[in-house]
Amino acid sequence: MAPNDWWRWKSGGSPFPAPRVQSVLQYLVEVLGTTPPSPPKASPVEIPAGRFRAATLGPVAVDRGNGLRLRYSYGMSYPDLLALRRGRVGPVTDGVAFPASTAEVEGLVAAARAEDVALVPRGGGTSVVGGLTPESGSHRAVVTVSLERMNRVLSIDRRDRVGRFECGILGPELERHLSQEKLTLGHFPQSFELSTLGGWLAARSSGQASTLYGDASARVRGAVVVTPGGTLRWDRPVEEATGPQLQDLLVGSEGTLGIFTEATLELSPLPAASEYRGVLFPDWDDGLRALQEVVQHGIRPAVARLSDAEETALSVAGRSPGSGFERVIERGFLRAKGTRLEGSCLAILGYEGEAAVVREGVRTMAATVRSHHGVDVGEGVGESWRRDRFLVPSLRDDLMDRGWMVETLETGGAWKTLPAIYAAVRKALHERAAKSKVALHVGTHLSHAVPTGGCLYFTLIAPQPPDQFDEPLAGLKVAATDAIVRSGGALSHHHGIGTMHRPWLGSQRDAASVTLLRAAKKALDPSSLLNPSKVWPEEGGH
Amino acid sequence: MAPNDWWRWKSGGSPFPAPRVQSVLQYLVEVLGTTPPSPPKASPVEIPAGRFRAATLGPVAVDRGNGLRLRYSYGMSYPDLLALRRGRVGPVTDGVAFPASTAEVEGLVAAARAEDVALVPRGGGTSVVGGLTPESGSHRAVVTVSLERMNRVLSIDRRDRVGRFECGILGPELERHLSQEKLTLGHFPQSFELSTLGGWLAARSSGQASTLYGDASARVRGAVVVTPGGTLRWDRPVEEATGPQLQDLLVGSEGTLGIFTEATLELSPLPAASEYRGVLFPDWDDGLRALQEVVQHGIRPAVARLSDAEETALSVAGRSPGSGFERVIERGFLRAKGTRLEGSCLAILGYEGEAAVVREGVRTMAATVRSHHGVDVGEGVGESWRRDRFLVPSLRDDLMDRGWMVETLETGGAWKTLPAIYAAVRKALHERAAKSKVALHVGTHLSHAVPTGGCLYFTLIAPQPPDQFDEPLAGLKVAATDAIVRSGGALSHHHGIGTMHRPWLGSQRDAASVTLLRAAKKALDPSSLLNPSKVWPEEGGH
Repeated sequence: MAPNDWWRWKSGGSPFPAPRVQSVLQYLVEVLGTTPPSPPKASPVEIPAGRFRAATLGPVAVDRGNGLRLRYSYGMSYPDLLALRRGRVGPVTDGVAFPASTAEVEGLVAAARAEDVALVPRGGGTSVVGGLTPESGSHRAVVTVSLERMNRVLSIDRRDRVGRFECGILGPELERHLSQEKLTLGHFPQSFELSTLGGWLAARSSGQASTLYGDASARVRGAVVVTPGGTLRWDRPVEEATGPQLQDLLVGSEGTLGIFTEATLELSPLPAASEYRGVLFPDWDDGLRALQEVVQHGIRPAVARLSDAEETALSVAGRSPGSGFERVIERGFLRAKGTRLEGSCLAILGYEGEAAVVREGVRTMAATVRSHHGVDVGEGVGESWRRDRFLVPSLRDDLMDRGWMVETLETGGAWKTLPAIYAAVRKALHERAAKSKVALHVGTHLSHAVPTGGCLYFTLIAPQPPDQFDEPLAGLKVAATDAIVRSGGALSHHHGIGTMHRPWLGSQRDAASVTLLRAAKKALDPSSLLNPSKVWPEEGGH
Repeated sequence: MAPNDWWRWKSGGSPFPAPRVQSVLQYLVEVLGTTPPSPPKASPVEIPAGRFRAATLGPVAVDRGNGLRLRYSYGMSYPDLLALRRGRVGPVTDGVAFPASTAEVEGLVAAARAEDVALVPRGGGTSVVGGLTPESGSHRAVVTVSLERMNRVLSIDRRDRVGRFECGILGPELERHLSQEKLTLGHFPQSFELSTLGGWLAARSSGQASTLYGDASARVRGAVVVTPGGTLRWDRPVEEATGPQLQDLLVGSEGTLGIFTEATLELSPLPAASEYRGVLFPDWDDGLRALQEVVQHGIRPAVARLSDAEETALSVAGRSPGSGFERVIERGFLRAKGTRLEGSCLAILGYEGEAAVVREGVRTMAATVRSHHGVDVGEGVGESWRRDRFLVPSLRDDLMDRGWMVETLETGGAWKTLPAIYAAVRKALHERAAKSKVALHVGTHLSHAVPTGGCLYFTLIAPQPPDQFDEPLAGLKVAATDAIVRSGGALSHHHGIGTMHRPWLGSQRDAASVTLLRAAKKALDPSSLLNPSKVWPEEGGH
C-alpha cells in the first residue's frame, strides 16, 4: 500500500500553524536538552488475508478491501498511530459493515451470531485506549461495524429540550442541527470534530464544558441498544421510580454489551452570552484551591481548567510568536510576583448562558481568583484557548513527524486526593524516565472540574528511539497507571478501558460486582461476539 | 391487641390544626354534596402465629413479639392504613431484625440463605406502594430487616462536599448533622421526617426541591449494598469511564437486589438565602407554560409546583381561617381577572442559594410569570407552603378518622405530554367514579419540574363505604394507572413499584431488558430471598 497520511488527525496538511510547531520543537529541545533522531522510513504495511469471505453479513454488505480494513482497525492512541507509521500493524479486521438502520444492525448481529463472527462497533474511530482493536476472540472472523451511515436527526423538540438522533452522527453535524433550533448539547470532547454520539455513549465520554453541561451519560434520556440477546429500549424524559434501570450498565460498556443505534438527549439553550478568561496563578496549589471554590459556586462555569507550570510554559511556547499571547501572560505574571513566567500556572475559566447569569458568574469568579493570588490576564487568552482547543491533536502528528513520542493519560478524583495523585503520577513517570534514561516532558492540567473533584490530564513527550517500538511508552504507562491506582485515582476519567486499562480493571471491582457484570454480559452476549478482549478482565471467553 | 394510633403519620394527636381540618371537611361536604358514614369500629387485629422460631438469624437477634411484627409489616398506603384501622390485616412478618453494621447485615443475609428465610428490608416504613408487605415467597418464613440502628454519620467532608452515612439514618437527623457543617443534601420528600437514606436510595426517591438538588440517585457517589451473592461496593467521587456501572441497577431496586447499608453522597452548601413566593394563574395551561419556562431558565428554582383549580381551592380551604391566606389569594386573583377565586391555580416558586443568585432567579421568574398572566401573591404564601409541607400526611389521618378515603398517585412525563396525561387521568377517574356512583374529589399538582418535564401528582378523596374494603380505591387506581400508561406517563415518578404497580411493569419493559434484569436478579439473589413479590413481574419464583 502506498504511504499516505490518512492516519493523521486531519489529513492533507496540519492545521496547526507551522511557526508555532517550530516554536514548540525549539522549546522541547531547550528544556529536554535533546533532539530525537528522525523516525525510520515506514515499511509497507503487510495486511493479512481476511478470514471473512462473504459479500454480506445478514442484510448488510461487508467491505473487504485491504485499505478500508486497515483504516478501520485502528484508533488514535500513540501505539496505534506509531504502528501505522512504522507499518508494524497487529490484528486487522476481516471486513467493515455499514448498516443504515437499527433493523439492519439487528440483522447484522443475528447473522454474526449464526455465522460465528465477532463484531467491533465503531463510531468516529478516535479511541485512545485500543477500543477498536479487531480481536476475533474464539470466533472464526471479526467484522468492524461502522455506524457512520446512521447519522440522521430523528427529531428535535425545542420547547421540551430533547432531541433524538441516530448514533453515528458526528459532533459538528449534531451541533449544526441543534444550533438551527437555538439549542446545544454542550458536549465538546477534544475529539469533537471526529467522534460520534454513539462513541460518546459507549465510551462514557466527558466534554470540555462538562462542568456546566454534565458528561454524555448525564444527558441521555433514552436509547436503543442492539445486543445479541435482543434490543434494549428505554425512554425516560424525567426521572422515574420504576425499578432497576439499565442505562448505567450500557453507557460506558464500550461496545461489549451492545451497539447504541439511537439516543434521546436532553439539550440546553444555545448560550446567549459567554465569557472565557485567562487567569495566572503563582503556583499549582493556589490554582487548585481557587478552581475548587469557583466550581463549587452556585453559578458554575462551563469550562474550568488549570495547567501546571510545565504545561503552561509549553502552551505559551505553542502560541504564534506574533500573537502577543506570551507578552500578555508575562505582563500578568509580572504584576503577580514581579518575577518571570517560570513556575506560574495558567487557568481558563469560561462562563456560558444567559447574560445576567454569565455576568454574575464572572464577577464572583474574579473575586475568588483574587483571594487565591490569581491575576486576570484577560478575555483574549480565554478566547485563544477556545479557538485552539480542537487543534492540539494535530500538533501531536507534527511532533510525531519529527520523531517525538506524544501520549496522554488521565484520571479522576476528589479534590482532597488530587494533589497526592498529581505528585504520585509525576514521581512515577520521572523515576521511570530516569531509570530508562528517557528525556521526558510531562505537562499536566486539571479539567472537567465539578464540585466534588475533577480530572487530571497528563501529556507525555519524549524522543521516540527509532529502533524501539513499545518503549518508552509501555514502561511509562505502567508506572503512571500503577501510581494512579495506588493513590486512589480512577483508572480513567473519560478515556475508557479498551484494551489498554484492562489489566487493572479487575483490581478495581469487588467479586460480587464482577459476578453481576459477567451475568449481564452472558445475558446480552452469551457467545461473547461483541468487541472481544475489551474492558472485561480475562476469564474463559471474554 | 388494644387499639392505639401508632399507624398515624404522627402518633399522639394530629399536628394539623383542628380548625383547619374542620374547614377542609366542610369544603369537601360542600363540593361533593355528601358526608361519609362513620367508619366502622376496628375489630381486634388477629395476628397469625409466626413461623420463625429462633432467637437469632445469624449474628442478629430477631424480635418475634406480635405488636412489633404487625407494626413492621405495613407501610403508609391507604390500603395499608385501612387494613390496620379495620383490623383486616394480610401477611404479617415472622420477626424483625435490627442489624447494627454492614457485617451484621452480611451475616444475616448469609443465615437467611442457609435457613431459607425471605427478607424484607425496611427503612422508615413509609412506602405507599406496598413495598414492605412481608411476603415469604416460596420460603419457610419471612423476617423484616430494619436498618434503624444503622444511623451513624461516618464522615462529612465540608471542603469536598461529600459525606458518608449508614443508610438507616432519618432525614432530620441527616440534615441536622449536615447543617452543623453548613451543608445540606437538599432532599426533602414529603416523608422526610420519617424516611431514611436507605429508603430514598432503594425507592429512587425524589424530593420536593429536586428541581435544584436532583433526586436521590443523582447525589450518590458511592454505596455498600449487601446481597446474597456478595457485597457490592463502589466509590466514584467524580464521573469515571471505567466500564459498565451498577448504580442505576441498584438504586430503585426496592430491596429486591440488595440492602443498602452505607452511602456516600454529594452535598450542597446550606443556602445563604432563599425566597419562596406564591403566584396565581388564571388557569392550568397558563401555569404549566410559565413553570416550564421558569425551570428551563439558567438559574433553577429549588421548588416549582403548580396546583390545579381543584387542589388550589382545597388548599385555600385548609388554611387557618384567621391566617389571611384566603384573603391574600383572593386579592391576587381579583387583581388578575376581576373575578372570584374559582378556577385559579396556585403555584409555589422557591429559590435557594447564594444571595445574588436567588435575587437574579426571582427577578427573571417574576418577568416570566407576568408574561403568562400570573399574579404574584407574595412571600407569605410561599413561606406558608414551606411551613406546612410536612403536615399534609397528618391531614389524611384526620380525614380517615371521619370516614374519608384519601390516596395519592403520581406519574412523570415530558412537558409536551403532561396536558394529555392530566386530561386522561382525570377523565378515567371521574368516569370510573360516575360508574360506581362515588363522590370523588381529585386535586392535582405539577411538582419535581425539570427542564424536560415533571411529575403530576393526584390526590383522590371520596367517602369510604364502611361495608367495603378494596373499593372505591381499587377500581379508581386501575382506571388511573391504565390511563397513565396509555397516555405515555411513567408508571411512577417517585412512589415506586412495590406490589401495587407490579402488574403494569411487564408491559413497560422490552424482552431483552427483562432478560437482563432477571439475570441480574439471579446473579445477586439466586434463591429470591429478597423482598419477594415486589417490583418484578411474576415468573417462576419472583
